[in-house]
Amino acid sequence: MSGTMNRGLYRHSDLRRLVAPASIAIVGASAREGSFGLRLLRNLGNYLGRLHLVNSRYERIEGLPCHPSLSALPEVPDCVVVAAPREQVEAVIEECGRLGVGGVIVFASGFAETGKPDRAAEQARIVEIARNAGVRLVGPNCLGVLNYSLGAIVTFAATAVIDAPRPLSIGLVSQSGALGFAFGQAIEHGVSFSHVLTAGNSADVDVADFIAYLAEDDACTAIACLFEGMAEPMRLIEAAGIARRHGKPVIVYKIATGEQGAAAALSHTGSLAGSNRTYRAAFEHAGIVLVEDFNALVETASFFAKAPRPVASGVAVASTSGGAAIMAADEAESRGIELPQPAEACRAVLADAIPEFGSARNPCDITAQVISDPMSFRRVAEALMADSAYGTLVVPFAYAYDIATPRIGVLDELARRHGKIACIVWLTQWIEGPGSTIAEQSDRVALFRSMGACFEALKKWHGWSQRAAARDPASAALVAPEVSASVGRSLDAAQAEVMTEGQAKAVLAAYGIPMVQDRLAASADEAIAAAREIGFPVVMKVESIDIPHKTEAGVVRLALADENAVRAAHAEIVANALRVTHADAIRGVLVQPMVGAGVEVFVGARVDPLFGPTVVVGLGGIMVELMRDTAVSLAPLAHDEALRMLRGLKSARLLQGFRGSEPVDLDKLADIVCRVAQFASDHRSRITELDLNPLICSKDRIVGVDALIGLRTRAERPTSP
Amino acid sequence: MSGTMNRGLYRHSDLRRLVAPASIAIVGASAREGSFGLRLLRNLGNYLGRLHLVNSRYERIEGLPCHPSLSALPEVPDCVVVAAPREQVEAVIEECGRLGVGGVIVFASGFAETGKPDRAAEQARIVEIARNAGVRLVGPNCLGVLNYSLGAIVTFAATAVIDAPRPLSIGLVSQSGALGFAFGQAIEHGVSFSHVLTAGNSADVDVADFIAYLAEDDACTAIACLFEGMAEPMRLIEAAGIARRHGKPVIVYKIATGEQGAAAALSHTGSLAGSNRTYRAAFEHAGIVLVEDFNALVETASFFAKAPRPVASGVAVASTSGGAAIMAADEAESRGIELPQPAEACRAVLADAIPEFGSARNPCDITAQVISDPMSFRRVAEALMADSAYGTLVVPFAYAYDIATPRIGVLDELARRHGKIACIVWLTQWIEGPGSTIAEQSDRVALFRSMGACFEALKKWHGWSQRAAARDPASAALVAPEVSASVGRSLDAAQAEVMTEGQAKAVLAAYGIPMVQDRLAASADEAIAAAREIGFPVVMKVESIDIPHKTEAGVVRLALADENAVRAAHAEIVANALRVTHADAIRGVLVQPMVGAGVEVFVGARVDPLFGPTVVVGLGGIMVELMRDTAVSLAPLAHDEALRMLRGLKSARLLQGFRGSEPVDLDKLADIVCRVAQFASDHRSRITELDLNPLICSKDRIVGVDALIGLRTRAERPTSP
Repeated sequence: MSGTMNRGLYRHSDLRRLVAPASIAIVGASAREGSFGLRLLRNLGNYLGRLHLVNSRYERIEGLPCHPSLSALPEVPDCVVVAAPREQVEAVIEECGRLGVGGVIVFASGFAETGKPDRAAEQARIVEIARNAGVRLVGPNCLGVLNYSLGAIVTFAATAVIDAPRPLSIGLVSQSGALGFAFGQAIEHGVSFSHVLTAGNSADVDVADFIAYLAEDDACTAIACLFEGMAEPMRLIEAAGIARRHGKPVIVYKIATGEQGAAAALSHTGSLAGSNRTYRAAFEHAGIVLVEDFNALVETASFFAKAPRPVASGVAVASTSGGAAIMAADEAESRGIELPQPAEACRAVLADAIPEFGSARNPCDITAQVISDPMSFRRVAEALMADSAYGTLVVPFAYAYDIATPRIGVLDELARRHGKIACIVWLTQWIEGPGSTIAEQSDRVALFRSMGACFEALKKWHGWSQRAAARDPASAALVAPEVSASVGRSLDAAQAEVMTEGQAKAVLAAYGIPMVQDRLAASADEAIAAAREIGFPVVMKVESIDIPHKTEAGVVRLALADENAVRAAHAEIVANALRVTHADAIRGVLVQPMVGAGVEVFVGARVDPLFGPTVVVGLGGIMVELMRDTAVSLAPLAHDEALRMLRGLKSARLLQGFRGSEPVDLDKLADIVCRVAQFASDHRSRITELDLNPLICSKDRIVGVDALIGLRTRAERPTSP
Repeated sequence: MSGTMNRGLYRHSDLRRLVAPASIAIVGASAREGSFGLRLLRNLGNYLGRLHLVNSRYERIEGLPCHPSLSALPEVPDCVVVAAPREQVEAVIEECGRLGVGGVIVFASGFAETGKPDRAAEQARIVEIARNAGVRLVGPNCLGVLNYSLGAIVTFAATAVIDAPRPLSIGLVSQSGALGFAFGQAIEHGVSFSHVLTAGNSADVDVADFIAYLAEDDACTAIACLFEGMAEPMRLIEAAGIARRHGKPVIVYKIATGEQGAAAALSHTGSLAGSNRTYRAAFEHAGIVLVEDFNALVETASFFAKAPRPVASGVAVASTSGGAAIMAADEAESRGIELPQPAEACRAVLADAIPEFGSARNPCDITAQVISDPMSFRRVAEALMADSAYGTLVVPFAYAYDIATPRIGVLDELARRHGKIACIVWLTQWIEGPGSTIAEQSDRVALFRSMGACFEALKKWHGWSQRAAARDPASAALVAPEVSASVGRSLDAAQAEVMTEGQAKAVLAAYGIPMVQDRLAASADEAIAAAREIGFPVVMKVESIDIPHKTEAGVVRLALADENAVRAAHAEIVANALRVTHADAIRGVLVQPMVGAGVEVFVGARVDPLFGPTVVVGLGGIMVELMRDTAVSLAPLAHDEALRMLRGLKSARLLQGFRGSEPVDLDKLADIVCRVAQFASDHRSRITELDLNPLICSKDRIVGVDALIGLRTRAERPTSP
């Protein structure tokens, strides 16, 4: 249903005539009250470009000439807005194509979103017509495409009239029209948008294209995106990469996180919602800032639009309410954000400016005295802003009243002077009370309506700036090209869709992943000889592609301490194996050393249909299977990302030493994770999944004792080079 | 610092003259612009009772007579409001006492909240004076006590002027004045408060008293409370119990949840913040509805004030936005809330009323067509409200515009007719846009500003109603009084502050808790005899009060399969024991059967200094210690509460059978938890803590294999009866 298959992103120049048109034509313009056509016309009342109306039933509408057709216009318009019913859309687009129009916006519903094949076919047809003619198509079923710099308010919804956007503005992109416009109404209390771009059915232009456009548009400082799911989400990742290279933050809120939501999404846009964890991993990998809360999207984008790079990681809090100061301390602590105590010079000013019943620490309780002594607020704020330990000052506003409003200007001025940002946390339930709009309109004051959203944004601000400075993971490959090629040939030669344990271990070992040494024994005597070489105690397992779950089948024996044990184990294993498969499928019995105790780590890889190769880590069976304590990332990944994954596990303490056990060498473990990721990335066209489980980690060594590699069907694999 | 020690709750009649005064006197009334006294006077402009002014410097203020002293007033006022400076407060309270005033509200700061001993002493003095005279004292450092029914707006803060509160109104109570008033400004967008009561320093009257007052006040339908911490939180639990008996919901938001927040709280009010987990357990036990988000407090209280008992647990969602429908599905799913599909009759109406590009399921996408066809909204809403599977209808509002406003009245009427409630989720970022106030003012429409807060409230609504119907856990005691008394004597007779393992097991066994059978052996021969009786294999452990951590000390031996092993183990254990203690402290060696494999459960009890006896459960060492996966509850507790604790563990799946192991008998396990709770409750004055760890749970049996009981010092224990 998405028309993006096999198409790279549209870039700024591709969409300029559509999103920043010098001329707009409304097809289906109307004089009838309440009609889409008339509402559209009125919304374009302040459009700075040339407006043309098309409708054969009228000669003039609201004082403007109305033409019988597009061809009859005095010029070929950059952008055509189709306010006509569904049945007429195809003909209009054909005409747009013939004339060489830049872009078309279609409002009509009833296309692919109905789920009906004939309507989907209709949609595919209009996309084909548009593409063949080089006309960019937004919609159908689009709610609006708004460019505030030009006054190009292309929607039939009633919208606020505003002046030009401010220099620091948010470009809003939304897969859901209604939710996009829900965010857009933040304009009513002072938020500045450069654009509000909704994609409707995303038949041609989609949110990834819009993000790429905004990435290179000077009117937009930060990009906010409401996202549901798409057939090729890597395009969005690519668009985010363009934004990152332009230093432009991309803030995303994702819906359709549950299975039911995903089912609803499928009927809504016809696209797959995809695994939530993998989306999250992909977004973070791309430097996208994910917000957890709908109401935090615009606030957080606004913060990022206004905030400079943090000059320090410390946060200062100055409050007229002791209770609000406590809330700030709670939110900082739960996120690991430092609230360092002020340096002596600063502390002295605080102690002098604050009444005795306040608190001259950080968080700082200025008390309500500030009402009768306004200068005390300035003194406190100045001292904290000047202290080099703090990158920001957070000021809760617990009450909306005019006396407090001048403090906003004070904060704006101080933040500007010190190259920092001030955050006002608007706690009062007079949610759009006096002062809130002034704060939104200030360039160096970010307004949050919850303490949690404020500190979440600060945490992301710190992380985003660090990662923006880091290198791309396209660093030196961990294995030589000839090794990769050789492993590729081994994978291609494998007969079945699951490699044997021995085969899997061999290819992983080739990638520098330490695997326990196997020897393949064809008989009990060979097994004994192998055990003698390796050294007792040993482990024995059947080597057969037909038995992936060996423990359950009784074909694994551990801790075999002598030759008798080995002989007996060989007999048992073979007997049990023959119960579940035939002799032809048994290649022999693997003999390997018994690895000592240690922390068990699981490292897996999957080739995700939407995102390509991903790597998963977790600790020991129960942590992964029962507690779902895993970390996911796209592959390949850089060493410090692998470290972050490991440290982020809820059970990470097990790696640091627990109950007397030694800490694990995290660098060594992270390197292994990177190599598994490299493997999955190199051979993504050959494998479906890879399980290295467990890796046994002790102080001295890390070694994998079992591995499983699932292969694509022979038909799907590439022929070896 | 808190003046509540050894004092029961104030009840409605105790506080009536304070909170619902027929007459108010302002001491320190003033004509000076900007003064507290003048602001107070103006706020009382609509007070329905008799207002008196006291200030020797004036004869009249704003047309009202001003008297030189309280004694000079024509009557003894019910309530005296002290707008005078701190230094004059004590004298005023003395005079109030002499005259027989009902209550006093003190605004002045600079008392115990400064942390200074002399100011704390001042505060204690004014409390003593007030108490001795039977005068109820609020504050000092109070921000305000507002009774909207009487127009008794006793505060110096600028507040909105409103008419009388509506029948369904919220009584707001807050430990933090500023945050209380932050909530109180919700009045600006239509929320109806009966009272806003802030306690200042809680020197006499505290939030627990206020909650008990509101519980019995007809003007208040639901109670909302912002809570920090208090020295005797059981008083708040008791007040909540009074509210519950009046069928009045109590909604609480707690701050000071982190350590830093707690430190800030200590300096703020001088009270202990207490363990967050234990607070949570105590609140839930008391039927208090806890909200996780500051912005959800008033919304949730408003919902509970308006909502009838749920007539069904199903939730219907009708949306004009596909994206919002997805969000609703996400939030319902993550909370386990059912969105059942409509019955056929209802479905038929939906299919007829909704355009083809919408969705006639639940969640129901009505589409934007509803703008041109307003009747479709009524038809859909009517059908869903009438369907007996649904107790509520959730309607997201993604855009604020006048055309949508009539839908609010439709929802209100339908909800009223069907005995249900409608929930509007106001997603648009025009946060106080047109229609929002009308929704707040509707009796059968609850307004939420986040989808999550809406579904969280629905989840709590279902749970609250179920628990309100349940019996109090003051059910039949699990053990006979003579058993409890006998165990009490054993505990009292114990010499040291830790019981031996054998002693601990014995008293727990007396409470019907299945413990493994120990035999105490004084020699290797006795050990062998015991082992023969019990049956091999056995476990042996030293019995000594000096060695609580036996594994580390090497004084435990497991899986002893024959007499030789027992003999050798005995020697090792004794030798290791002598390395860490002296022979006198070694009572012998315990011999017990080796219990087979099973799921390990931890059950502990602690006597919390704030809440009394509490019980903790968790699964196996790593889950409890590493993952902190535990459940906490007050003791004693009822069987179904114990079941809820166990099922609520993150690792609960282990109890249901995992990787081939059999499920555990949850009823049996819950019964053991209740018995441990009973033990802790019965002997709270004797013990400090109790660890039953582990209980080994297999399909056939549950048995405790180790136990530790910590006792209070002999001086602290009661003498045995």
